[in-house]
Amino acid sequence: MINGEKIVDQPIRWAMIGGGRGSQIGYIHRSAALRDANFELVAGAFDVDPERGKDFGINCHVDPDRCYPDYKTLIEEEAKRPDGVQAVSIATPNFTHFEIAKAALEAGLHVYCEKPLCFTTEEAEELEALVKKTGKVMFISYGYCGHQMIEQARQMIARGDLGKIRIVNMQFAHGAHNVAVEKKSGSTAWRVDPKKAGPAYVLGDVGTHMVYLSEAMMPDMNIKRLMCSKQSFVEGRQLEDNAMTIMEYDNGAVGYIWSSCVNAGSEFGARFRIVGEKASIAWDVEHPNQLAYEVQGKPQSVMQRGAGYLYPEAVADDRIGGGHPEGLFESWSNLYTRFAKAIDKNEKGEEIDFWYPDIHAGVLGVKWVEKCAQSGDQGGAWIDF
Amino acid sequence: MINGEKIVDQPIRWAMIGGGRGSQIGYIHRSAALRDANFELVAGAFDVDPERGKDFGINCHVDPDRCYPDYKTLIEEEAKRPDGVQAVSIATPNFTHFEIAKAALEAGLHVYCEKPLCFTTEEAEELEALVKKTGKVMFISYGYCGHQMIEQARQMIARGDLGKIRIVNMQFAHGAHNVAVEKKSGSTAWRVDPKKAGPAYVLGDVGTHMVYLSEAMMPDMNIKRLMCSKQSFVEGRQLEDNAMTIMEYDNGAVGYIWSSCVNAGSEFGARFRIVGEKASIAWDVEHPNQLAYEVQGKPQSVMQRGAGYLYPEAVADDRIGGGHPEGLFESWSNLYTRFAKAIDKNEKGEEIDFWYPDIHAGVLGVKWVEKCAQSGDQGGAWIDF
Amino acid sequence: MINGEKIVDQPIRWAMIGGGRGSQIGYIHRSAALRDANFELVAGAFDVDPERGKDFGINCHVDPDRCYPDYKTLIEEEAKRPDGVQAVSIATPNFTHFEIAKAALEAGLHVYCEKPLCFTTEEAEELEALVKKTGKVMFISYGYCGHQMIEQARQMIARGDLGKIRIVNMQFAHGAHNVAVEKKSGSTAWRVDPKKAGPAYVLGDVGTHMVYLSEAMMPDMNIKRLMCSKQSFVEGRQLEDNAMTIMEYDNGAVGYIWSSCVNAGSEFGARFRIVGEKASIAWDVEHPNQLAYEVQGKPQSVMQRGAGYLYPEAVADDRIGGGHPEGLFESWSNLYTRFAKAIDKNEKGEEIDFWYPDIHAGVLGVKWVEKCAQSGDQGGAWIDF
Amino acid sequence: MINGEKIVDQPIRWAMIGGGRGSQIGYIHRSAALRDANFELVAGAFDVDPERGKDFGINCHVDPDRCYPDYKTLIEEEAKRPDGVQAVSIATPNFTHFEIAKAALEAGLHVYCEKPLCFTTEEAEELEALVKKTGKVMFISYGYCGHQMIEQARQMIARGDLGKIRIVNMQFAHGAHNVAVEKKSGSTAWRVDPKKAGPAYVLGDVGTHMVYLSEAMMPDMNIKRLMCSKQSFVEGRQLEDNAMTIMEYDNGAVGYIWSSCVNAGSEFGARFRIVGEKASIAWDVEHPNQLAYEVQGKPQSVMQRGAGYLYPEAVADDRIGGGHPEGLFESWSNLYTRFAKAIDKNEKGEEIDFWYPDIHAGVLGVKWVEKCAQSGDQGGAWIDF
Repeated sequence: MINGEKIVDQPIRWAMIGGGRGSQIGYIHRSAALRDANFELVAGAFDVDPERGKDFGINCHVDPDRCYPDYKTLIEEEAKRPDGVQAVSIATPNFTHFEIAKAALEAGLHVYCEKPLCFTTEEAEELEALVKKTGKVMFISYGYCGHQMIEQARQMIARGDLGKIRIVNMQFAHGAHNVAVEKKSGSTAWRVDPKKAGPAYVLGDVGTHMVYLSEAMMPDMNIKRLMCSKQSFVEGRQLEDNAMTIMEYDNGAVGYIWSSCVNAGSEFGARFRIVGEKASIAWDVEHPNQLAYEVQGKPQSVMQRGAGYLYPEAVADDRIGGGHPEGLFESWSNLYTRFAKAIDKNEKGEEIDFWYPDIHAGVLGVKWVEKCAQSGDQGGAWIDF
Repeated sequence: MINGEKIVDQPIRWAMIGGGRGSQIGYIHRSAALRDANFELVAGAFDVDPERGKDFGINCHVDPDRCYPDYKTLIEEEAKRPDGVQAVSIATPNFTHFEIAKAALEAGLHVYCEKPLCFTTEEAEELEALVKKTGKVMFISYGYCGHQMIEQARQMIARGDLGKIRIVNMQFAHGAHNVAVEKKSGSTAWRVDPKKAGPAYVLGDVGTHMVYLSEAMMPDMNIKRLMCSKQSFVEGRQLEDNAMTIMEYDNGAVGYIWSSCVNAGSEFGARFRIVGEKASIAWDVEHPNQLAYEVQGKPQSVMQRGAGYLYPEAVADDRIGGGHPEGLFESWSNLYTRFAKAIDKNEKGEEIDFWYPDIHAGVLGVKWVEKCAQSGDQGGAWIDF
Repeated sequence: MINGEKIVDQPIRWAMIGGGRGSQIGYIHRSAALRDANFELVAGAFDVDPERGKDFGINCHVDPDRCYPDYKTLIEEEAKRPDGVQAVSIATPNFTHFEIAKAALEAGLHVYCEKPLCFTTEEAEELEALVKKTGKVMFISYGYCGHQMIEQARQMIARGDLGKIRIVNMQFAHGAHNVAVEKKSGSTAWRVDPKKAGPAYVLGDVGTHMVYLSEAMMPDMNIKRLMCSKQSFVEGRQLEDNAMTIMEYDNGAVGYIWSSCVNAGSEFGARFRIVGEKASIAWDVEHPNQLAYEVQGKPQSVMQRGAGYLYPEAVADDRIGGGHPEGLFESWSNLYTRFAKAIDKNEKGEEIDFWYPDIHAGVLGVKWVEKCAQSGDQGGAWIDF
Repeated sequence: MINGEKIVDQPIRWAMIGGGRGSQIGYIHRSAALRDANFELVAGAFDVDPERGKDFGINCHVDPDRCYPDYKTLIEEEAKRPDGVQAVSIATPNFTHFEIAKAALEAGLHVYCEKPLCFTTEEAEELEALVKKTGKVMFISYGYCGHQMIEQARQMIARGDLGKIRIVNMQFAHGAHNVAVEKKSGSTAWRVDPKKAGPAYVLGDVGTHMVYLSEAMMPDMNIKRLMCSKQSFVEGRQLEDNAMTIMEYDNGAVGYIWSSCVNAGSEFGARFRIVGEKASIAWDVEHPNQLAYEVQGKPQSVMQRGAGYLYPEAVADDRIGGGHPEGLFESWSNLYTRFAKAIDKNEKGEEIDFWYPDIHAGVLGVKWVEKCAQSGDQGGAWIDF
């Protein structure tokens, strides 16, 4: 049970790059990190507009002198201070993640980076090598994997409650971009622009969340090959707004992921069903407190977050007891708690004995998008992974 | 509103081939046909065991003399009577459909045939030609398409309530055969035996239901090409027990059908979502009285069978008023009502001005299975349709 | 498993009084009785308009000579025939039930009577005495109690799966009469007219259905006292359109029934939750194939009609297998099957060893309405039952 | 949209009384208050064990010198400091609320007090007078009313989207105490002990939450009279563990609240349906992001938190955008944001132009429990309110 007492010896000195005023994602990073007593927001390069960034930082109680105009200055200046930042979170547009993450790692900082990590497997592997070399902690912001029922799913699968896994059926298919919203919305415009968003839109923006959830729940299964059929339904849109991916895993299982932003009328439509030999589980991002558990030949059942019958790992992050709905903020808070714990162990030279969305998660996402795009461009051909 | 009064001048003289004691499907055929005053069950070749068949027929008030030992005798003897049968329903094992349907058509009978019609496109097209030649009425037993909300869906799509269709997302994925039930159950044994079941199991057994529902709702969309990834998860099973099919349509839409009998813990798992430019609809075979209607940017809504806001075509078959749940039997009854009406018009030389699962539906299903099997056998290659 | 073969030696010669063209309830009576091979519709007094009644009868294949202008003639003429009717169903307006049921019983017929049986406990007890005296079979048309999951509920409670029952929480609260529809609809007009509908509207029209379901599931619990708060929300409406009833049972349990026709936007809103010491069950009339089963401290579960884990009594009436949705027609058909079986046993002098909505159910409903109305008229005072 | 920037000129100096290590409710108070930049936790009397309380405070970064052994010392010492606390939150056992709230108000502090405010209407009115006299801000911790869909409900009702309200149907009926858990759990033991918990258990513990939600949504409706039937189902339990309350309002509407802790197998079972002349809304505490909206004669619809079609008041507190699930913590955070804003306005002498669960909410809850208990003790008699 998490109750807000610090779990690290000293709160970690932390800064944000990006995520200032008007950023939705910035707020959830700050809210998650500062939720409990484990981080202090001591610096930031919050905004491309330095004045607005400073004003914002002041409103968040950051020392005005440590509100920097850009990430380079932040890294440079903080490095000079004895009480300089130990960790940064990166919440800037996608095409800047690579260079900022690289610079931060090189400066000896721990990094919590928004997804996608970068645009090419090559870049991703460069960062992977850098993490290895520097020995720093790196988290990729797959924010759904901190939900307690994902942990429950992972534990159930590991313990064999489903039997051998046969089918992974996933979708993240919302409808918010069923028309050309990019003509009006800047934040959508760069997402559908190949120059700024890389080789794909929905595959990266939403599909990778499900890919990582499958990795989080079934760490031992590896994609062997895949094929992807992708479409751009909205006129004038260059990147795909719909994609259907079929995967084969090395253990004989198969998977399917529907990624879409043109699923008209759907809220997020982000959910999965994992089918094993004897039972299945199902979960919906919009109702994260419930996990369906269906054993063949028995009444279908639904598990509730916080319940006494869950595995200990799944109640460890409980903050308020069963019945009370927790939401996305708690999932992120759980991840930032792990980030704090990982930094603490890392700095003490202890082994990190728990899982989190690490650099490998980042590489996986980038590679999956790359392979899907490649297959889609070839009309849905099978591609080795 | 259907209220049980006959809608044909004279009740149609009708016989069943197969579907006797112990047959689930036989009961629903009889129940649907005899529901209202449009058919009379006057003869039958109900069973491979002639004595049991006769005993069964007597219990259903059939004249013992018209309980025949086999379909050939039935067709032959009835042809001699002035009051001989006008129509037959075929509810025998799959591998016999072709020859019986052929014989019945050749004898000048109207035919209501269980799916699949046959095993090869070649055979299917032979029957198609025969229907054309004889001018008789032929229904293929796609029993879900008689649900009123399918009619509502068809009307909504035709009237443009969804905008241009982009994505057809379907599944029929139950879990009943997640282990080798065929070792104990005879009725499953022949379904997974390539000699008796043809080139496929779940693709034909469940997948084709969804294929035809899509045809029923979107008669103007045609599959251009498809690919299928299929698996046999249960050890020793020769035919596929799981299949994922991606389709491209001639209007630019795409489709996906998940066919499975190893979806452990799932009841039928038979449902679809049709996504248009501006709205989507969703429906579940197990909850046929509801149709979700989700318009992008508006609260999601659910339509109820029998409601005043439905299109007239969708309330025409109402039997009991909204709120009261109708089930599978009503869907079949609606189809048999159309069968009666079609025969009535056919015999009067009038044009049949309504849709039903006709010979084309039969051909479509057979061809779809054939193409899917072909693609699956080639490791999921794309196949022109 | 019911498969349509007759279960009586000879089909029962049966007539309908009321329920002709345009009657919703008439159709479901006929459809249920004639579903299988146990009844023959041989006569009728279908309509207050004799010509329309005869025309209707002919369309249902009734001999024109046995289509009578009124119930008295029917009873009189049929009594003269050696092959006269053995049983009648009464589907006329409520205020005629008493006299017709009485006449039919006195004529030695078995009776299937629409609810409410009559308007006063006195009349109900007169009929009860008459049933006892004549020894005939009498069913009251509580059409929901034939659902298989009601049988499952009854069996679970009897076997102690819930522990001792503590709370019965029920509602039948639709919204169809939230405005003065009686000004336009004749069939609603008589229901809200105290002269024709008796002392209550929604209490009798919908509330009694729930009262009888509780009796069907918990035959050993008896109401000790009750209080009712009732309202007429729609201007000009004389009888109540909303009522809240609290009940105390002789075993210490308590109950609540919300009866309403002004629950705007609700479909039927007919459902219940039975709470025992250790578990609860919940059911919804509109989704009759599912029964929620919730054991304290365990994941909540849902049972499915037709499943192998149900009690044998609950699968005995299965017609099509689990997964396939059955609806209201099957519930009624199950009851008419029991009506046939009861008549068959009655005529053979055998004991009827199964439950059904008998004359006691009729008396209970009438008495409950009477007591509720009385309490409501006294401003919600407690009334001994 | 809330994004974490402070909305007050200076963060409010804030302390907690109670709510230390092991307290579930303490964590949510702190998490909600400290979520954004509007409060600073500068002092506390967290625990009856002073050492544990100090250790806890230190872990929450409170100056050890300001971790006090009890609330009296806290109030006394902080009053001496120029930077002493401005506001306190009280999260101690119920029977101490009255004296602590009184002392805090008398010391000139703003107060955020757990419910119930106290045990008698007399005490409640004494506090009400004190709030009036001191002019300080007082919040009662009805933590569900901060959910955005409650605001949406309030706005819909105020704007007439439902028509005149007729029926308020509520329940908070969980199953966690279906057996004598008080024998093992201290935190339950005092709740069912009349000496420590006052005249009632579930009425106060859960029922009042629904009473206040109805007040929050329909501020113009007042209870005129009520009756309550209450039970103690668990052997040896002195206070009621189940209660059914019927209410009549001054505008002609009626209400029903089911309060229970013996609803075996239910999670919280906290939900309501508000029925108006033309439409109803329904909401469930466990799925706070959805609000059902059902207009008679139209398809039933569900509104989603954060959606563009909501009223502006309902999206003002959005933190993360629609689709993303918010939970209980956000509801509380919204209320603490209002607490900060109210204090800020109060100290500047400005009018507070928004609603919140104020001292009147506290009085209402206490009075409602008192009247219900009184009615229940009289066997369910009607009591004027």
